[in-house]
Amino acid sequence: MSLAHGYAVHDQTAPLVPFSFERRAAGPDDVRIEILFSGICHSDLHQARDDWGGAKFPMVPGHEIIGRVTEVGANVTGFKVGDFAGVGCMVDSCRHCAACDEDLEQYCEKGATYTYNSTERDSGQPTFGGYSDHIVVEQRFVVKVSETLDLKAAAPLLCAGITTYSPLRHWKVGPGQKVGVIGLGGLGHMGVKFAKAMGATVVMITTTPEKGADAKRLGADEVLVSRDPAQMKAHAGSFDFLLNTIPVSHDTNPYMSLLKRDATMCLVGVLTELDPPLMGASVMFGRKHITGSAIGGMAETQEMMDFCAEHNIVSDVEVIDIKTVNEAWERMAKNDVRYRFVIDMATLEKAA
Amino acid sequence: MSLAHGYAVHDQTAPLVPFSFERRAAGPDDVRIEILFSGICHSDLHQARDDWGGAKFPMVPGHEIIGRVTEVGANVTGFKVGDFAGVGCMVDSCRHCAACDEDLEQYCEKGATYTYNSTERDSGQPTFGGYSDHIVVEQRFVVKVSETLDLKAAAPLLCAGITTYSPLRHWKVGPGQKVGVIGLGGLGHMGVKFAKAMGATVVMITTTPEKGADAKRLGADEVLVSRDPAQMKAHAGSFDFLLNTIPVSHDTNPYMSLLKRDATMCLVGVLTELDPPLMGASVMFGRKHITGSAIGGMAETQEMMDFCAEHNIVSDVEVIDIKTVNEAWERMAKNDVRYRFVIDMATLEKAA
Repeated sequence: MSLAHGYAVHDQTAPLVPFSFERRAAGPDDVRIEILFSGICHSDLHQARDDWGGAKFPMVPGHEIIGRVTEVGANVTGFKVGDFAGVGCMVDSCRHCAACDEDLEQYCEKGATYTYNSTERDSGQPTFGGYSDHIVVEQRFVVKVSETLDLKAAAPLLCAGITTYSPLRHWKVGPGQKVGVIGLGGLGHMGVKFAKAMGATVVMITTTPEKGADAKRLGADEVLVSRDPAQMKAHAGSFDFLLNTIPVSHDTNPYMSLLKRDATMCLVGVLTELDPPLMGASVMFGRKHITGSAIGGMAETQEMMDFCAEHNIVSDVEVIDIKTVNEAWERMAKNDVRYRFVIDMATLEKAA
Repeated sequence: MSLAHGYAVHDQTAPLVPFSFERRAAGPDDVRIEILFSGICHSDLHQARDDWGGAKFPMVPGHEIIGRVTEVGANVTGFKVGDFAGVGCMVDSCRHCAACDEDLEQYCEKGATYTYNSTERDSGQPTFGGYSDHIVVEQRFVVKVSETLDLKAAAPLLCAGITTYSPLRHWKVGPGQKVGVIGLGGLGHMGVKFAKAMGATVVMITTTPEKGADAKRLGADEVLVSRDPAQMKAHAGSFDFLLNTIPVSHDTNPYMSLLKRDATMCLVGVLTELDPPLMGASVMFGRKHITGSAIGGMAETQEMMDFCAEHNIVSDVEVIDIKTVNEAWERMAKNDVRYRFVIDMATLEKAA
């Protein structure tokens, strides 16, 4: 056991405050990581406010973790002390079901163990996330981070990155395709970068015309303002794939009209109701698909980190002092961030 | 031009009444068909009541037509006088777009011309459907009907049949798969027959336990009562494909939980809102798909008719006298039909 320091919320209306807790000792398959940077994901706020139910308090959020390895167990083969390492949304799974066997731990049939707001499979202890100084994670759930990446800007790859990379790969986005990324936030800005790096023609679809210039800077070939009926009509029936990153309930029907026959829109942001409701006609005429995707498996997360190193892709981040984390959450709730806050964990003052 | 006799509704609250109108002369590519049987589809009622908007009155419904060829144009190669022929939901399309080129006229990019409640492409005249004594249709939109089929019971194949056959083929349903058919009505009972004939293990999913015995008679291997939480839990995550034939708004989320990872539920009945709304989580956890399918192309409709002749598949029908058609509509609205009404057109009294 080791004493960890971080920030936690103690109930669903409370701010983040300093918090100390125990981490388990590193077992033979574990990697101990000193956390250098921890990204702030919109889902941190959803979970702290118990928007999805099942919140466990105290809660130490954070699942976009970049750090340095400080200890490895006897069976650990892929990491050594001093390596840079990343931890994302999961820290364990059953490892024996069909999904785990196919390296799709995120769809573990017994349910994955999440990095925070979850329960360790062996000990039954709560999991605590990356808004803290160190973490102990089984090696399967740790990825290698290239030294060539800007570490602070690499932190959001562990959630925003893999969440957008995985569906673009699964639905085989590539050259000759017209791909739309809906919503320009933490997920959307990564979707644009990845889809462009994969060779597609990328259209940023946004309600906010002001984001157009930035979308093009990120790599978008074109910008479609979804509130403009003339623009929507001009693009009707033209998209091979849509990556929908909107994190709140919204009307999906206008976006379905943008798809070609037999094409797919994938949801990665919204877990709750699609309201106003989807119309049957929106999928029936043109045999269109609406689907969703959750993060990615560990092998694919490593593939994504390597793809980022190869293509020099990181997130656009605003680095903050952990003492300002509550203000950052307030700004994130208003979409006032381009495009991801990352906590510099060196700013954490450790209690005696 | 030729005088046709049939039944029409004259406004969205009116009953069907006798109606006479002109059919076009048979052009060089046309087939003239004496209508023997005309199926009654639930969408006849939807359109007559203007549930989907755009109703044109007077309206002669009917798009499940079986008849005998009485005249062929000079260019007609596939039909001769005396042949049995079928006409379904479409009588024309642009014939030049990508969809038409792929024999998917139902997804014609210019919009297909429907058998009734639509407008002829050349003349601009309204189209009138199968609740009538004869019809004139371009040869591409007419299918051959085997003499071995029970003609009255073959009529519903032209809509209920192709609507269920096409998605089962498109999503490659076959041996080794567990397929669910949701809703036991005109579409659902055909879905069970086709999925079984294609070699799948078929589960009838219904809210009505009383329909269980009949579902098994139709070919279902098992019956799942969707209102029983224990049964739903026992089948969770086990289906390779779901064919959802429910024709009205309903909660799709419980059905999504029945699908395996990466599996698809296809809507063929409901055009309107899915209310209560679909949850993002219902597709995201397991990368599940919700899609839809509309009837089928003409080549596939012919393939389906041939498949039916080969496997001796027809609909379960209740044949009626056209003078009782309004009562049949009332019963259909209450799901009081097993499983399709078919009008015997010999009962039509022709006005002088």
